Amino acid sequence: MSTTLKQLPEGYKIRPMEPTDYSVLKILEVLTTVGSISEEQFSLQVEEWKLNDRIYNPLVVTNNNDDVVACGMLFVEFKLIHELGKVGHIEDIAVRSDQQGLQLGKHLILALTEIARSKGCYKVILDCDEKNVGFYQKCGYSVAGVEMSIRFDK
Amino acid sequence: MSTTLKQLPEGYKIRPMEPTDYSVLKILEVLTTVGSISEEQFSLQVEEWKLNDRIYNPLVVTNNNDDVVACGMLFVEFKLIHELGKVGHIEDIAVRSDQQGLQLGKHLILALTEIARSKGCYKVILDCDEKNVGFYQKCGYSVAGVEMSIRFDK
Repeated sequence: MSTTLKQLPEGYKIRPMEPTDYSVLKILEVLTTVGSISEEQFSLQVEEWKLNDRIYNPLVVTNNNDDVVACGMLFVEFKLIHELGKVGHIEDIAVRSDQQGLQLGKHLILALTEIARSKGCYKVILDCDEKNVGFYQKCGYSVAGVEMSIRFDK
Repeated sequence: MSTTLKQLPEGYKIRPMEPTDYSVLKILEVLTTVGSISEEQFSLQVEEWKLNDRIYNPLVVTNNNDDVVACGMLFVEFKLIHELGKVGHIEDIAVRSDQQGLQLGKHLILALTEIARSKGCYKVILDCDEKNVGFYQKCGYSVAGVEMSIRFDK
């Protein structure tokens, strides 16, 4: 790791996302469109992830008021290559805009990376904008390739 | 699509990977280390994918001798963003080395992309080496970002 990591601020915690963490949706709006999702739909999705916890590992950061202030996802892909190897994928890291500068994103990346390691993944990958390469390098990641995408019209 | 796609050669087919397609492992060796996987381990992995077919969609291409000559994977990630949106991930595209020039890779990419579209994904992403960007552009993909990775020591 090329930079030191401060401790989480007092009272802040990292824990698995729960079906009651509906406020996660507000946090995700810093990333992209979230759209209309009811509390019930949210709970069902998180419960489904929990039933598939070999694959899905969503985390949240809560503050000293127990409000969710950041979130992130690790999912684990089961492959054939590398002797039935597993690869972790980090997705949808979001930090509430008034919580920048507390290294919450870095804490999340390191926690998700550690889950992947403990589950036996041989690597973790993620895709980011060019401007965030430096941040992920400080989290121990290296540039590995090019992300390509195709979007479908609705 | 910026190039035309020839039809598959006569007798060639694209179909879902089956638990009996053990020869897939030889094909994957063109990509990276596969290691020691027994026929039983292979079958169990493919059966587990079939039980999770909302997520895992492995395809193979067979030739006029019914030999597997190429393979590829689409897995579908269930998200919160984009109104409980789904994203397809294409992984581990491999073509037997004596089958180059038949556009089997392109056929696979288009078939996997079509599965993602039919399953309601709003986009498909994949990571590749810089040298393969042009190939994926011909498949309708665009550069979207940077792939970062971290590898763990055994």
